[in-house]
Amino acid sequence: MSKDKTPRRPRAESPKGFRDYFGAEVTERKTMLDAIAEVYHLHGFDALETPAVETVEALGKFLPDVDRPNEGVFSWQEDDSGNSGDWLALRYDLTAPLARVAAQYRNDLPSPYRRYAMGPVWRNEKPGPGRFRQFYQCDADTVGASSVAADAEICAMLAGSLERVGIPRGDYVIRVNNRKVLNGVMEMAGVLDPTDPDKFHAERGIVLRAIDKLDRLGDGGVRALLGAGRKDDSGDFTKGAGLSDLQIEIVMGFMAAKRADGAATVARLRDLVGGSIVGQEGVQELETISEILDAQGYGADRIEIDPSVVRGLGYYTGPVFEAELTFEILDEKGRPRQFGSVAGGGRYDDLVKRFTGQSVPATGISIGVDRLLAALRAKGRMDTVAVGPVVITVMDRDRIAEYFAMATELRNAGIRAEVYLGNPKNFGNQLKYADRRASPIAIIMGGDEAAKGVVTVKDLILGARIAEGASLEEWKSRPAQVECARGDLVATVRAMLGA
Amino acid sequence: MSKDKTPRRPRAESPKGFRDYFGAEVTERKTMLDAIAEVYHLHGFDALETPAVETVEALGKFLPDVDRPNEGVFSWQEDDSGNSGDWLALRYDLTAPLARVAAQYRNDLPSPYRRYAMGPVWRNEKPGPGRFRQFYQCDADTVGASSVAADAEICAMLAGSLERVGIPRGDYVIRVNNRKVLNGVMEMAGVLDPTDPDKFHAERGIVLRAIDKLDRLGDGGVRALLGAGRKDDSGDFTKGAGLSDLQIEIVMGFMAAKRADGAATVARLRDLVGGSIVGQEGVQELETISEILDAQGYGADRIEIDPSVVRGLGYYTGPVFEAELTFEILDEKGRPRQFGSVAGGGRYDDLVKRFTGQSVPATGISIGVDRLLAALRAKGRMDTVAVGPVVITVMDRDRIAEYFAMATELRNAGIRAEVYLGNPKNFGNQLKYADRRASPIAIIMGGDEAAKGVVTVKDLILGARIAEGASLEEWKSRPAQVECARGDLVATVRAMLGA
Repeated sequence: MSKDKTPRRPRAESPKGFRDYFGAEVTERKTMLDAIAEVYHLHGFDALETPAVETVEALGKFLPDVDRPNEGVFSWQEDDSGNSGDWLALRYDLTAPLARVAAQYRNDLPSPYRRYAMGPVWRNEKPGPGRFRQFYQCDADTVGASSVAADAEICAMLAGSLERVGIPRGDYVIRVNNRKVLNGVMEMAGVLDPTDPDKFHAERGIVLRAIDKLDRLGDGGVRALLGAGRKDDSGDFTKGAGLSDLQIEIVMGFMAAKRADGAATVARLRDLVGGSIVGQEGVQELETISEILDAQGYGADRIEIDPSVVRGLGYYTGPVFEAELTFEILDEKGRPRQFGSVAGGGRYDDLVKRFTGQSVPATGISIGVDRLLAALRAKGRMDTVAVGPVVITVMDRDRIAEYFAMATELRNAGIRAEVYLGNPKNFGNQLKYADRRASPIAIIMGGDEAAKGVVTVKDLILGARIAEGASLEEWKSRPAQVECARGDLVATVRAMLGA
Repeated sequence: MSKDKTPRRPRAESPKGFRDYFGAEVTERKTMLDAIAEVYHLHGFDALETPAVETVEALGKFLPDVDRPNEGVFSWQEDDSGNSGDWLALRYDLTAPLARVAAQYRNDLPSPYRRYAMGPVWRNEKPGPGRFRQFYQCDADTVGASSVAADAEICAMLAGSLERVGIPRGDYVIRVNNRKVLNGVMEMAGVLDPTDPDKFHAERGIVLRAIDKLDRLGDGGVRALLGAGRKDDSGDFTKGAGLSDLQIEIVMGFMAAKRADGAATVARLRDLVGGSIVGQEGVQELETISEILDAQGYGADRIEIDPSVVRGLGYYTGPVFEAELTFEILDEKGRPRQFGSVAGGGRYDDLVKRFTGQSVPATGISIGVDRLLAALRAKGRMDTVAVGPVVITVMDRDRIAEYFAMATELRNAGIRAEVYLGNPKNFGNQLKYADRRASPIAIIMGGDEAAKGVVTVKDLILGARIAEGASLEEWKSRPAQVECARGDLVATVRAMLGA
């Protein structure tokens, strides 16, 4: 290697679209993942952890954004076998790896196989504000159960998970639809021919994506996309599905089919799918899901049938679900807006078949944990105040072993503690450090204290509160620092922390 | 896209060198990570999570295997900017990303900055038996503390972490050495010239790697590598450092410098480094670490000074640590062998400097969690018996809502439970499923039970125990199944689980 005497220094930057998480950002997410895992586990789901890396062929091309089926993943070719190495990629979700596992271990896994998985996924997309290329998902899926009771269970468990992490009833709704009903409507509209499923494939793709944009584009925008096409604000033109007015009416009628309760919506959908066999089957499934959930006390305030939910994903084959937070938050510009979707899923009976040729029924849900955390933070519901460690200041380098011994005593009592390890010369820096760490207490033992066999225990929270204008009573009742016998250190700190 | 009517099916395989983790494999690791995080947190360390992906330039070339400094990572080029995109790579450890973070946020982080991090790292190496290309690390580092008190703290915390996860005293030892002492010895041996540090660079690299192989190659093998070179069993020749016999004696004397206790070892090392300034500095640091640890009660049975520890990593600049498990396990061929290293670390004062030009002292430890788990399993110390869920069998599809209600009642009482969701026609399959899930209890409610308002609660653990030859007393005292009122379901299950 050539030696460059003045090499350019590397940039100290995370790659574009990736970010670091510090302290409470990490532990709050962990707490949420733990809570959801507990709910999943209680429902009989077992943990599965697949590697971050899969072969490109195993992942397939099922990325949510079907406009760009070949893009969106971080991939590279194995270089250890000339130019014929496998193409590998970072997983873009947790469902594709599950399908691979269900096929690979099909003779060893229980059937049905209920599994949960959580971890980061990666998307090679253009990063934007608040849009990252690595984010967490937290999934639960049931593989091998064709009954829609499995779908109902997933919906109920999703409701339980949301409530468990602090989204109360009324602040969320889980919307359920069925891809089969949509297919029935497509048949009625003449863009799906049951005898030739490949016909009108492109048109149906456009219809699906148009419906999925109802929230954003409104009635008029969706109608334009169903018809000739739509020009957006920037002047860009998106080609439409080319449906006739009558066809458009049928599709739009489907999206407006929601009624006051599940039974009424089901009745309306039954009319709309007319004689379509797959459509009637889909309506029947929705009715069964609705009945099972009703019997368990999940009313339309928590889980509702909503025909406008289609989910962008191409691989769903039956029921689809979406969890939305219904409260408003303020966006970057201070305008109130609905928080929107935090979880989605559905039935995908053909993913395992890709590998084995045999159809395996599967259904599941994916919770977008980072979005859910953002929602709780936006609502001020993350009230875990990060408490820093007790800081044992260093007054005298020769006493460092004694300082460490104090830290050990505190830790043995379950109290987070550390010895200041920076340059101890400037005591002010030590207190600034404690402040930056949000330390509740500082311990001081210099030569005077050591000679008397005492330590000074300084209340930093009170210090901060005094700065915020504590009352005189508070000041009197709770001295900012106390001196205690060295042997009473733990008891004194504990009492001050408890105060 | 062209449509291939009979596409080749993708292989259902994880990529070579990657594996899946199921059920208890996932939760046991999580339990261990949680326990270690608790110890780190209690010591005042804050969580940090960096992305899996870094720029290649930020990662640098510090892979442990310095024989191949350019290899070993999974990397690819960003493709969104022609051919000038950044090269990105999966992190190969958690230290390089920390150095990047310490530089990137140097104005915002407290100093010293104590952080812990845990997660997978990736190595693009040839996979082998038990050798995977994705594995977990669990690190703690202190950045910004030049005092060796920080190194001592890391060693003590490592001991605490090992004991916390179930490795008792006597079953591990943490060996401490100092790269500076080694440099002093190198000076004495004439392969390090303090006025021209670049001289003999290649020779020192060979010396370091040779010393690191003492365990594997023995005294003779290391001497050969220090001298002309060594031919291994397969006939492959490794070029040596070309040292003279006298030089070899000096280096070997260093490795054999360990004495009965820290003070004696320090005295011996002081002789060996003679007039080398850096060597004397290193000995002094070891003495201080030893004193701090002694004062805290860490004797040589837990943490010892051992000059044969050098760690393969090129970036260490001062104290280095290695935790070894001292008990024997049986290898693949049934031969007893020492389990070996499960954690390592040291001081690396120059990693942050790469980015900023300013030297930042740093020290830390990395625990190889997967190896530690393997050790506990090999010793039979993972006694967490995976208990499956209570399975509510499906006798009657029309009662599915009632079955779900029972599952909900059990879960609300904290009992893991699920409704069987496979095809319910064959009841034997349902019990086989419960068996495969390691279910403790099956619930049965068919038409007869429903008419009487009762459920049958079947003890599957007893069933298994009877198969293993339970005594008659056990059989009598604990009936294999009981019938109870529907309203007593939870109480009956709880009593049976508690039995």
